[in-house]
Amino acid sequence: MLADTGGYNGDHQRLTKLSENMRAKSRINNPLLATRIMSAAQAAALIKPGATVGMSGFTGSGYPKAVPAALAERMKASPFKINVLTGASTAPELDGLLAAVDGIATRLPFQSDPICRQRINDGHIDYIDCHLSEVSQYVWSGFFGKLNVAVIEVSAIREDGLLIPSSSIGNNKTWLEQAEHIILEVNYQQNLRMEGMHDIYYGTALPPQRKPIMLTEAGQRIGEQYLRCDLNKVIAVVETDSADRNTAFKAPDDDSRRIAEHILNFFEREIEAGRLPKTLLPIQSGVGNIPNAVLEALDSGPYKNLSAYTEVIQDGMLTMLKSGTLTMASATAFSLSPAGIAEFNANIELYRDKIILRQQDISNHPEVARRLGVIATNGMIEADIYGNVNSTHIMGTRMMNGIGGSGDFARNGYLSIFMSPSTAKQGHISAIVPMVSHVDNTEHDVKVIVTEQGLADLRGLSPRQRALTIIDNCAHPDFREALHDYFARACASGRGMHTPHLLNEALSWHERYESSGSMRSGRK
Amino acid sequence: MLADTGGYNGDHQRLTKLSENMRAKSRINNPLLATRIMSAAQAAALIKPGATVGMSGFTGSGYPKAVPAALAERMKASPFKINVLTGASTAPELDGLLAAVDGIATRLPFQSDPICRQRINDGHIDYIDCHLSEVSQYVWSGFFGKLNVAVIEVSAIREDGLLIPSSSIGNNKTWLEQAEHIILEVNYQQNLRMEGMHDIYYGTALPPQRKPIMLTEAGQRIGEQYLRCDLNKVIAVVETDSADRNTAFKAPDDDSRRIAEHILNFFEREIEAGRLPKTLLPIQSGVGNIPNAVLEALDSGPYKNLSAYTEVIQDGMLTMLKSGTLTMASATAFSLSPAGIAEFNANIELYRDKIILRQQDISNHPEVARRLGVIATNGMIEADIYGNVNSTHIMGTRMMNGIGGSGDFARNGYLSIFMSPSTAKQGHISAIVPMVSHVDNTEHDVKVIVTEQGLADLRGLSPRQRALTIIDNCAHPDFREALHDYFARACASGRGMHTPHLLNEALSWHERYESSGSMRSGRK
Repeated sequence: MLADTGGYNGDHQRLTKLSENMRAKSRINNPLLATRIMSAAQAAALIKPGATVGMSGFTGSGYPKAVPAALAERMKASPFKINVLTGASTAPELDGLLAAVDGIATRLPFQSDPICRQRINDGHIDYIDCHLSEVSQYVWSGFFGKLNVAVIEVSAIREDGLLIPSSSIGNNKTWLEQAEHIILEVNYQQNLRMEGMHDIYYGTALPPQRKPIMLTEAGQRIGEQYLRCDLNKVIAVVETDSADRNTAFKAPDDDSRRIAEHILNFFEREIEAGRLPKTLLPIQSGVGNIPNAVLEALDSGPYKNLSAYTEVIQDGMLTMLKSGTLTMASATAFSLSPAGIAEFNANIELYRDKIILRQQDISNHPEVARRLGVIATNGMIEADIYGNVNSTHIMGTRMMNGIGGSGDFARNGYLSIFMSPSTAKQGHISAIVPMVSHVDNTEHDVKVIVTEQGLADLRGLSPRQRALTIIDNCAHPDFREALHDYFARACASGRGMHTPHLLNEALSWHERYESSGSMRSGRK
Repeated sequence: MLADTGGYNGDHQRLTKLSENMRAKSRINNPLLATRIMSAAQAAALIKPGATVGMSGFTGSGYPKAVPAALAERMKASPFKINVLTGASTAPELDGLLAAVDGIATRLPFQSDPICRQRINDGHIDYIDCHLSEVSQYVWSGFFGKLNVAVIEVSAIREDGLLIPSSSIGNNKTWLEQAEHIILEVNYQQNLRMEGMHDIYYGTALPPQRKPIMLTEAGQRIGEQYLRCDLNKVIAVVETDSADRNTAFKAPDDDSRRIAEHILNFFEREIEAGRLPKTLLPIQSGVGNIPNAVLEALDSGPYKNLSAYTEVIQDGMLTMLKSGTLTMASATAFSLSPAGIAEFNANIELYRDKIILRQQDISNHPEVARRLGVIATNGMIEADIYGNVNSTHIMGTRMMNGIGGSGDFARNGYLSIFMSPSTAKQGHISAIVPMVSHVDNTEHDVKVIVTEQGLADLRGLSPRQRALTIIDNCAHPDFREALHDYFARACASGRGMHTPHLLNEALSWHERYESSGSMRSGRK
């Protein structure tokens, strides 16, 4: 039966017709679940207004491709809202469509969709921006209320009813366990040869029943290949045939390349000083063009046999796995460009043994991040002169995406590196400011800040020492003088000299941007 | 040989003469180390100007009583500075004396001494305010440079050279391992019956050699009773006979009692909802009068067989252990009032089997805090309407004490509760403000805020929902209207509605306090 893809008419129509392949051989091998196949519209009709729905999806992969669209159609006809929980960000077919019809009441734990973001910042969506490792335990314990429905994309359903996961795991294990009802989307475009690449760990529990997670290397398997599923809870099975939608990476620009260079030089110094082994420590890499540039740089450097313990497999990691720079990569999702997906599918036999996908409460687990000593590299919106990092808010009030896993890794990893070009908006915004307008990663957690200008190693520095290091190494020359001026006047103000600030001026750069469109204009 | 206690002349002369007991039987049973006994002045002379010194001491217990004073005498005669690393806070005999002679260049990871605080806020001491769980790994890896000397208080030295720890462990294991030279202070006032209460875990390592820490219950022992020590590194042994200096607790005032009541009611509701077991989860309790009031309240409630996984054993915990409310308490230090010390010594046979002291990288370990599902209860300076907590800074610039373990436990524990009276300074300061002047525990980590006015459960709430909950439940009535007014105008401002703020007014309450001595005075 064909998926009813609803009325989605975005720029890139990805909900293609079911392939020949799909019609040739069903992926729904369990006899009971085969009786529950229906259209996306029929499945969407089973979700009640006001429901709390746990959906699959993490960084644009493995999200349901058809049911959200059908749900948005229903909402268009007769408005209602649901609460949407996912792994992390999804794609226009999920967040975009539901937000466009004002169909989301509460959203967590992460999103990056432009329409959804707009709705959050207009006050129409209650967005709960969480550490990604924590979501699962709070759903288990009931903090977010009852989970009514799970909508989960899988690659196939085995005869015994076990589910072959698709291109992300995220919170799928938790959704399947906790939801009253389950809707499965079986996506025929997901490569069946991914079978065996997943590692679902069924040893988690709520305290006081928790046991040690016996993971001591990024490449170690501790769980099962398949997602378990109570078949009696499955109320619908929907067939789809659409690729994950991920944007292509831009070729690294000069800024990204310089940032990568600074980080590589830093690694070299740390290795020389004996503070990092030659194979570094497991890399965690945020998503985006700068992290991808860092991966590219690592690949062209002298490194061999690195490992990754991270959230997401980006294009750069495939290259590194192929070249041998990277031996193993552990993540919870793919986030590949169309070219990356093609490369992965063409060489899947090479990649199958080198990539493990885990649930996000394991990929981001504080216990594991601390034990492995992850090197956390994440983007940021801005940092202040004392080393506090804003990862989420534009000018203190508007949500960009969310904290994601940056807090899981920055606090518990071995090294935390935050990266950004030193300016944004054609030089009107400085990424280094007197005081950040929102704090997601505190001065206690931020070890290294990098811009294309340079790198500030904050370890072992007091706040005033950090200020000079950050201004001189990371700020854009156009803003450096104003930052020095602020710092000097704050020091001279006679207030506290531990973290000198001029409170009535600390946020003035942001205020100036809001009122004039630029942080520039010299001293206030 | 008597300890040279130097010229310390504080209000409470604690460096008493060595007791009869001490002269009767030496506690230095190792023949080699017995040859290294000398006066505190002689030992202090072995510490070079500019040295980095790791000292014992955590919340006013187990700190060296004589060598710092002798060092301060030397500095008075001929000024120089050293870098001082400890477990956490110490006492006037250490931080106070060294700060008074301007003898501290860099101080980490925590202090609470008034003179030391003043020097930090005057800009004379570079203070590095760290998560207490992280210090050890960064010293091991060399981030803070070479550790020249360790000055460690112990209860006794065994014939085989193993050290019987005293009333705190803190970072002593790390200092002994990492320092080039070791000075031991053997304190005859420490109760020898503490022998066996300590649990020193020698399984830690730097990544990639780390293994799981197999601790699954607060009361479990995983290590050894004694501190190992390379005898060849010991350059001096100094005998002392002084009690730990801890201030007496105030009897809980009305505010503390109300805060405790709100928390107990909250626990009751959580148990009823099935979100907490009847024995709760291991309690972590910050230091101070309010946490102590919470412990008292727990003791008079219906609870039995609780456990504590915390930093510090306060008086309240002794009472709970005696009554059976608490079965086991794990910590890294005592922080007992004089009455508490007397009670402990009088009934040590009762307490010996119910208290375990661990090194602070284990007592505060993210892995263990997450696994056990610690309930973290900590004081705060202020919270903002969106749930960000300032634990460290007065009016954004002046250091109070430090973040201590609050970040270790709040991020990784199961529940994080932050507590404060709703006002300070005779009602001139509101503990609930539009925007905190410094962030130590972010909106992502703060689950519950409590004042004497009430409790705000922030789980599952978006920032705007949190604002109303915090203002209505926690703010003092005198400030409630002004907070509602700020929030309403921020919402109406047309800026982002995710976290509405008026940037030019967000810190105005603090600025008003700095200029007028009060946050009051109505709308700006």
